[in-house]
Amino acid sequence: MFQQLGVIGCGLMGGSFALAMKKAGLVKRVVGYSKSPSTTKQAKKLGVIDVAAESALLAVSGSDIVLIAVPVSATESTLKAIRHLVNPGVLFMDVGSTKCDVIEAARRALGERAASFVPCHPIAGKESGGVQHADATLYEGRQVILTPQPFTNPQLVQLATDVWSALGTTVLKMRPHNHDAAFAAVSHLPHLLAFAYFQAIAEQPAARDYLSLAGPGFRDFTRIAAGEPSVWRDILLANKHEVLAQSKRFRTMLDQLEALIETGDAAALEAALRPIAEGRAAWNLPSLPAVPPGRPAAK
Amino acid sequence: MFQQLGVIGCGLMGGSFALAMKKAGLVKRVVGYSKSPSTTKQAKKLGVIDVAAESALLAVSGSDIVLIAVPVSATESTLKAIRHLVNPGVLFMDVGSTKCDVIEAARRALGERAASFVPCHPIAGKESGGVQHADATLYEGRQVILTPQPFTNPQLVQLATDVWSALGTTVLKMRPHNHDAAFAAVSHLPHLLAFAYFQAIAEQPAARDYLSLAGPGFRDFTRIAAGEPSVWRDILLANKHEVLAQSKRFRTMLDQLEALIETGDAAALEAALRPIAEGRAAWNLPSLPAVPPGRPAAK
Repeated sequence: MFQQLGVIGCGLMGGSFALAMKKAGLVKRVVGYSKSPSTTKQAKKLGVIDVAAESALLAVSGSDIVLIAVPVSATESTLKAIRHLVNPGVLFMDVGSTKCDVIEAARRALGERAASFVPCHPIAGKESGGVQHADATLYEGRQVILTPQPFTNPQLVQLATDVWSALGTTVLKMRPHNHDAAFAAVSHLPHLLAFAYFQAIAEQPAARDYLSLAGPGFRDFTRIAAGEPSVWRDILLANKHEVLAQSKRFRTMLDQLEALIETGDAAALEAALRPIAEGRAAWNLPSLPAVPPGRPAAK
Repeated sequence: MFQQLGVIGCGLMGGSFALAMKKAGLVKRVVGYSKSPSTTKQAKKLGVIDVAAESALLAVSGSDIVLIAVPVSATESTLKAIRHLVNPGVLFMDVGSTKCDVIEAARRALGERAASFVPCHPIAGKESGGVQHADATLYEGRQVILTPQPFTNPQLVQLATDVWSALGTTVLKMRPHNHDAAFAAVSHLPHLLAFAYFQAIAEQPAARDYLSLAGPGFRDFTRIAAGEPSVWRDILLANKHEVLAQSKRFRTMLDQLEALIETGDAAALEAALRPIAEGRAAWNLPSLPAVPPGRPAAK
């Protein structure tokens, strides 16, 4: 049981964490701060936080657990603003979708105090951001990746693991580079491709007609092209080397399929498509049993 | 009210049409033929067809309406097999996803008799094909594109319009070239990209780990990569010029976004992503009011 949770960034991710912690009975009081005063005010009004702080530092003051849920590009400035209160024994976590850059930011901003910072990436979200969509069950049954460093306080890594497990998530540990490579492959590149594809259609003279004929396949393929631009700007830039490397692999495969189409080799094209279709049909969203909050999650 | 519907190809599309026609009370009797005798047998067993024919020609014999629901590459050989019974006054339709190639096939196979053939593309389907998934409501509330030619019998075009309308669809007429260009953009290219993307991930050494971390965005983005390989082989080859032209546009847009990522221009990248995200958020699947079968569809 924590005495006080400090949330910096009371949006979907931070607000949902606050609600989940309260629902699980893991915290007495939540103090929140957002860059936009109207967000902090709304979070208070919605009961997501108990106390609205006027600065990030004031949200940290008196907290024994702190969640930083800001766009990844704001991580460094946020940590700099609170560094004087980043003390041993207080658990600091983030929710960023990229980890190498966040760890570098923590090192630069905190120096030795970075030992109290446990880098986290909960694999959860919604199309619609903002505190008004905060949801106590957002993290239930999902995965959370921790990317601790050799200098990270192991007791705080264990504490972070226990907290996320108690919220009904499955906790995995990865090296930051492996994390960023994996998410470039399965998340960041698809977003880039969906953005590029939607715009390539939308800027054509006949776009209006085309879009009126699009069906469920188009709807699902482009759903992620509605992602929040500031969030995806940050992710694509923070993880650019991995994203561009994955894009190169994708282009090579596209070249190969297009070559088969170009030459009209029906048998070879079908032979290329069949294992893909079978592979995708065999894949399922990793579904994790929802665990009642307050109990340890199944491994 | 038709006396007899002949269905050539008793799979998902053909079987669903048969069920829908019966449900709407538009036909007395359905005679079906599939290349695979086991499919024809199963269609009979499931009540999708009333009589199993032993050849395409026998399915046409005595029919006053005929649906050809075979892979587009089999259209020409199918029409050749039945050409002696392609008589004026009998409505012949297909359900192919490409239209220029189907029309060429009809001209070659039927000559002047092609007047009785009304090229159709109902925008409907399911991930799972086969007669066992045939569904009387598959077409309800969906769009059907007709691409009649100057030589097509206008009375049969009207009859085809009435039939599809009575099944609860909205009927649109387009030129075949415009149809193929539009569907290359909103359907065929996304399939090609999803195939290429899924395989580019699946063939990496760490694929198993990556796929275990993939989330709902990945699931939706790659859903269409499970499409039936023989169907997509045919579509991608039949419409290759349009598909490759659309792919080129896509690559140009991907180049532009990657250049912004490469140079790290955060403001320009966000400025590029914002209208895309807003455009996609504003787009909705054209939803057509479901019309009770038997009544004309709303325009």
